[in-house]
Amino acid sequence: MQELPSSGIIGVQWTHRVLTCRSAFTSSGDDLAALFPDAPSRVLVVLDDGLATAAPDLLAAITQWSSTHTDRVQAAGSPLIVPGGEQAKNDRTVFDQVVRAIHERHICRQSFVLAVGGGAMLDAVGLAAATAHRGVRMIRLPSTTLSQADAGVGVKNGINAFGAKNLIGTFAPPWAVVNDATLLPTLSDRDWRAGLSEAVKVALLKDESLLHDVEHAGVALQNRDLVVMERIVTRTADLHVSHIVAGGDPFEVDRARPLDFGHWSAHQLEQMTGFRLSHGDAVAIGLMIDLQYAALKHVAASSLVQRVANCLQSLGFPLWCDAMGDQDRLLEGIERFREHLGGALAITMVAAPERPVEVSSIDVDVMRQAIELTMRRGTDYISRTG
Amino acid sequence: MQELPSSGIIGVQWTHRVLTCRSAFTSSGDDLAALFPDAPSRVLVVLDDGLATAAPDLLAAITQWSSTHTDRVQAAGSPLIVPGGEQAKNDRTVFDQVVRAIHERHICRQSFVLAVGGGAMLDAVGLAAATAHRGVRMIRLPSTTLSQADAGVGVKNGINAFGAKNLIGTFAPPWAVVNDATLLPTLSDRDWRAGLSEAVKVALLKDESLLHDVEHAGVALQNRDLVVMERIVTRTADLHVSHIVAGGDPFEVDRARPLDFGHWSAHQLEQMTGFRLSHGDAVAIGLMIDLQYAALKHVAASSLVQRVANCLQSLGFPLWCDAMGDQDRLLEGIERFREHLGGALAITMVAAPERPVEVSSIDVDVMRQAIELTMRRGTDYISRTG
Repeated sequence: MQELPSSGIIGVQWTHRVLTCRSAFTSSGDDLAALFPDAPSRVLVVLDDGLATAAPDLLAAITQWSSTHTDRVQAAGSPLIVPGGEQAKNDRTVFDQVVRAIHERHICRQSFVLAVGGGAMLDAVGLAAATAHRGVRMIRLPSTTLSQADAGVGVKNGINAFGAKNLIGTFAPPWAVVNDATLLPTLSDRDWRAGLSEAVKVALLKDESLLHDVEHAGVALQNRDLVVMERIVTRTADLHVSHIVAGGDPFEVDRARPLDFGHWSAHQLEQMTGFRLSHGDAVAIGLMIDLQYAALKHVAASSLVQRVANCLQSLGFPLWCDAMGDQDRLLEGIERFREHLGGALAITMVAAPERPVEVSSIDVDVMRQAIELTMRRGTDYISRTG
Repeated sequence: MQELPSSGIIGVQWTHRVLTCRSAFTSSGDDLAALFPDAPSRVLVVLDDGLATAAPDLLAAITQWSSTHTDRVQAAGSPLIVPGGEQAKNDRTVFDQVVRAIHERHICRQSFVLAVGGGAMLDAVGLAAATAHRGVRMIRLPSTTLSQADAGVGVKNGINAFGAKNLIGTFAPPWAVVNDATLLPTLSDRDWRAGLSEAVKVALLKDESLLHDVEHAGVALQNRDLVVMERIVTRTADLHVSHIVAGGDPFEVDRARPLDFGHWSAHQLEQMTGFRLSHGDAVAIGLMIDLQYAALKHVAASSLVQRVANCLQSLGFPLWCDAMGDQDRLLEGIERFREHLGGALAITMVAAPERPVEVSSIDVDVMRQAIELTMRRGTDYISRTG
């Protein structure tokens, strides 16, 4: 074989920008408009129907915003309202709706999709924006604590297919991400706390001071203190973005992915419960299972297990769900996880705060004990507190 | 708005390797196996059914090859045979077949899809490989002159949707591309010549010596001289890859895309004829229309129009098709083209060989004349030669 002389390295760069604000649409809205280029751009707004219902003034605010910033924004029709929640990515309905709208409303590669909603909806809309015309520009406004803290500020998108979570997706840095705290107050209790298990996760991996903050914020957070939530979500998002931008492997070509701590079981439990278990609640359980395992293997101190369990329970996380009883099926999550990442198994755990360790094989009997201990701790707490 | 401190530049690099060879599978096959990493990788082979029929020994050769290179290759089941031709990308059947096989046959992000076939099939398989698990590794063996000279050696993939060509796709550099000339002899006359209009295109844009070569090769090529075809295809591929690797914009973020010369009308004519007109034949017509236009606008010399028409006709290209009669619909291709690229209109033409010029508006009346002149030249030639 002979290599063509033109073969060589292709390098591509993106600016990954994540911004925080309040009332992106309802105040003057100048800051949001300033993210678009000088000449007016066509903009297709896509809105999560759950959010549109919970925040009934939002749709009018968006319309008002675009009509007062015509120097930057040329609305491509009225906002497209699509289903939110895991159903958004469980089939191709939302993906197709958005691709079709991009086509019919003449959104080109230099136009924008502006998506406002939860993480699952952003994933499906993001895949549509990343693949229609091989990629149109996208601005995301994640509307939940989970999406603002975690996936919404990252560079991935995806939909589920053939029973596998995120089987189809791409890496596609958005034009910008805007975390607007004023989108959070209407969340249900379950969705309000959902970002906090990711905060605990990233705190354990990278920032013990964030762990202290979350540990002391239980009462304030249960009382819906928006200032406290905004601070924790912002710090979590910042650690997450830093991992992507400065971590050296934004498109996850190598194996080690420390931000997946607790996720092999979380993904499997979500799938097993048909997504009745939320991602936030699943991650809380997933963290506990892997921490229990690390303690049983004498990698982590058992005091850390108690500390994290106390913290998660003070935030309202139930560390238990029915599906944990089916240990055989739960343990299949390890192989699924390996396969989705590719290559040899690599599961990140922690020895202590800010001391991640990578594990390349799992002692299944010990993992069964870890699941058992996590379940027992969860059910004990429920029987004590009602 | 406040920007998170972690916001910053994401940079990603790929090696884009294009190799030439003969009998990749049927000789020792060591060179092909050497493209895989040291430890054996799981490999899903996907084969174009048109090719499997035309070259009935190929399937056995592939199986033989993988079974003699188990140090590098672990076959993930028997080769998956999928439809080739434009139908491969006209709906999601092939895409779904490949994603499902990747899932069911446990192809992970460090496993491989090895696809052997024509450009349309490689586009659909490529989209599946680029999006399943957010991207598994892909090696392409393009099996036509067109795919070896042009799209098969590039970094794009795509399928048609909602009546629009390549509406859904990504930029995804393959692990490697292998141009094997021994795949070419079974092509029909139409597919045999198809790569040559792309050769003329890239020669006009970048390399007059290639234009000389093609001009003098008419008889040899009509006589199916494989050495001559291999030389022209290899040079065309090299110019194409050089444009991607050294051109500074591999993912086409900016507007200028000089390699799209002749393509606004080619894509529209393909769509109008339901893809009965081949891409190769469409590009030959598209080049002539834009050259006629450039001559009418006194940008190019009329002698160049005659020179290129003579060359294309000596290669067997009919510079005419029914659909050219519907000028209104054909002209809609200009706006479609602009929209697919995004931003302001930018059509590349040539003033002379190696002197591309970019045109940012089209004089529609003159373009109608150019279409008329191209049709007349095409029908005159047909009536002269039968």
